[in-house]
Amino acid sequence: MSKQILVLPGDGIGPEIMAEAVKVLNLANDKYALGFELSFDDLGGAAIDRYGVPLADETLARARAADAVLLGAVGGPKWDTIDPAIRPERGLLKIRSQLGLFGNLRPAILYPQLAEASSLKPEVVAGLDILIVRELTGGIYFGQPRESKVLENGERMAYDTLPYSESEIRRIAKVGFDMARVRGKKLCSVDKANVLASSQLWRAVVEEVAKDYPDVELSHMYVDNAAMQLVRAPKQFDVMVTDNMFGDILSDEASMLTGSIGMLPSASLDANNKGMYEPCHGSAPDIAGKGIANPLATILSVSMMLRYSFGQVAAADAIEKAVSLVLDQGLRTGDIWSEGKTKVGTAAMGDAVVEAL
Amino acid sequence: MSKQILVLPGDGIGPEIMAEAVKVLNLANDKYALGFELSFDDLGGAAIDRYGVPLADETLARARAADAVLLGAVGGPKWDTIDPAIRPERGLLKIRSQLGLFGNLRPAILYPQLAEASSLKPEVVAGLDILIVRELTGGIYFGQPRESKVLENGERMAYDTLPYSESEIRRIAKVGFDMARVRGKKLCSVDKANVLASSQLWRAVVEEVAKDYPDVELSHMYVDNAAMQLVRAPKQFDVMVTDNMFGDILSDEASMLTGSIGMLPSASLDANNKGMYEPCHGSAPDIAGKGIANPLATILSVSMMLRYSFGQVAAADAIEKAVSLVLDQGLRTGDIWSEGKTKVGTAAMGDAVVEAL
Ligand SMILES: CC(C)[C@H](C(=O)O)[C@@H](O)C(=O)O
Ligand SMILES: CC(C)[C@H](C(=O)O)[C@@H](O)C(=O)O
Repeated sequence: MSKQILVLPGDGIGPEIMAEAVKVLNLANDKYALGFELSFDDLGGAAIDRYGVPLADETLARARAADAVLLGAVGGPKWDTIDPAIRPERGLLKIRSQLGLFGNLRPAILYPQLAEASSLKPEVVAGLDILIVRELTGGIYFGQPRESKVLENGERMAYDTLPYSESEIRRIAKVGFDMARVRGKKLCSVDKANVLASSQLWRAVVEEVAKDYPDVELSHMYVDNAAMQLVRAPKQFDVMVTDNMFGDILSDEASMLTGSIGMLPSASLDANNKGMYEPCHGSAPDIAGKGIANPLATILSVSMMLRYSFGQVAAADAIEKAVSLVLDQGLRTGDIWSEGKTKVGTAAMGDAVVEAL
Repeated sequence: MSKQILVLPGDGIGPEIMAEAVKVLNLANDKYALGFELSFDDLGGAAIDRYGVPLADETLARARAADAVLLGAVGGPKWDTIDPAIRPERGLLKIRSQLGLFGNLRPAILYPQLAEASSLKPEVVAGLDILIVRELTGGIYFGQPRESKVLENGERMAYDTLPYSESEIRRIAKVGFDMARVRGKKLCSVDKANVLASSQLWRAVVEEVAKDYPDVELSHMYVDNAAMQLVRAPKQFDVMVTDNMFGDILSDEASMLTGSIGMLPSASLDANNKGMYEPCHGSAPDIAGKGIANPLATILSVSMMLRYSFGQVAAADAIEKAVSLVLDQGLRTGDIWSEGKTKVGTAAMGDAVVEAL
């Protein structure tokens, strides 16, 4: 039975890094007889250029029909001055929302080979392995009403709404607990319950869900303290679960603790583990087209896809091992390069992973 | 002409650290003939115990009448299960809002004597000196409507509102530009304009205000990227200006970069530079009553008060110098202690600053 993978390279370095990920995916497909069929389409700026909108209806339909989506990155200065309603990011937000991809998994792992890259002291981050579970289809990102208007006194004002329902909180809390259960059995729920009404409900519902997970140790932390603790002692965390906006901020902070955001993949899952997979980093327009971007986060996103959406553990493990091997060989793209290592470009890095696999 | 200072020690370690700050303030008062008259009252948990509410009307009236307010810290486990409407934090939010203290200045400075305390590599943080300007009386902290309710289908839901008006943004942007002008002439405005309507207005108004400050270099950064850049390369920043919630998160992250949050003061100013001054850290209930808390952030808050509300630059400088001197002498409270230094308690540290002054 064949499986459909929709590939959306996107903008900036997206097409370059995706080309390498597709090489790896094709090889894994053959080697492990995965029966994947790949098709390609555009999202973000590339879709604006081609369809006039950042996510065309036909692309969305193909994404719905697919078994998984692999995404590069979206956005760039070319589309910065465009009508906000059709900015590249709108395509990303729409596909997340329309596919119901509420569960965003963002690991922050420090690769021992890249320990030097972190701006933190080695003893603070050595062995770091955090998983941030971010709610991705609710909260202030999608809350209605939101509006920009002119008041009677002639002054402009604008507002957004941050809503959460019990069921939205419950399902993401479950993802958090399920992940903690198969990892270090510690879940930290992050909110701002001393100020926000939505956070008070968040905390209450997380407490209720906790009853079904007596084997997982639950703690609560205010978001300001969490931002501090990630800097002070990040290894205290195993799994963190939080809302859309806090997750956006904390997952970027956490990924930067590793110093090598070019290495970090992410998964966005729906209720049936159908997912979209993408690197944590952005489209890096400044280095686009130069063939120097790091394809490893995208390659590792392929591995996450095999693991979470298709249960292909052997193939997923093999890709991760291949990535570890090329790092052992001393190969580095510019973003993770250090004295004494071999600097390689995007394609050479992709080829090395293919070779190792 | 006498000046009225209202002192609110608050909860937890508040009374201990405030006792030391008051020693220093009294000495400065005499030495520089400042003509301050001090009075004392309660805020937060202490006010709940005494008045039944975290900010009594009479306390608020005294704060209004005062020329400046000096605050310790509020909150603690004793009041954690209390009705959310009268939690200790509500007192803090109410006094900020009622006094119109919209401009929150939070410096993150690395003291050269404490360089070791940071979890970041010395070369990343040496000489760090960032000022975060946080909007403190608007945004999602105070936005209406906010509600927790049960939907028709029986599900609970809750929401908050994040509003900003042009005038609210304009006045805090001005504070940011004014501060940048007398510092490194670089202002970074942090928002989430790729997602939030309120952030789009924020960015537009900051751009307008920028026209009056051609000598200040303005940049914009998304909040997720700012959280990352603070970890990666914090010295790229001079002054950052941002909204209430983002400022809460980023100022805590930034202060932890120094590794010595027990050293950091803050100011909250109204339109006429009347202000409330408090340490950046919390009430640390776990070490309350033990006489080991670090009083230096509160002592430095006195210095900020002299500088910003009263223009007493000589006295403010003298207090900062005295603090630097006791650090040079090797005196350290537990939170900033390291091998080879002399561990002292709260009172001994306060006495040492008095001595140095
Ligand atoms: C591009 C932007 C809309 C997006 C977000 O805020 O979710 C990005 O920062 C991310 O984290 O995937
Ligand atoms: C105690 C809390 C309400 C407060 C805030 O969120 O503003 C605190 O975290 C702060 O930053 O002063």
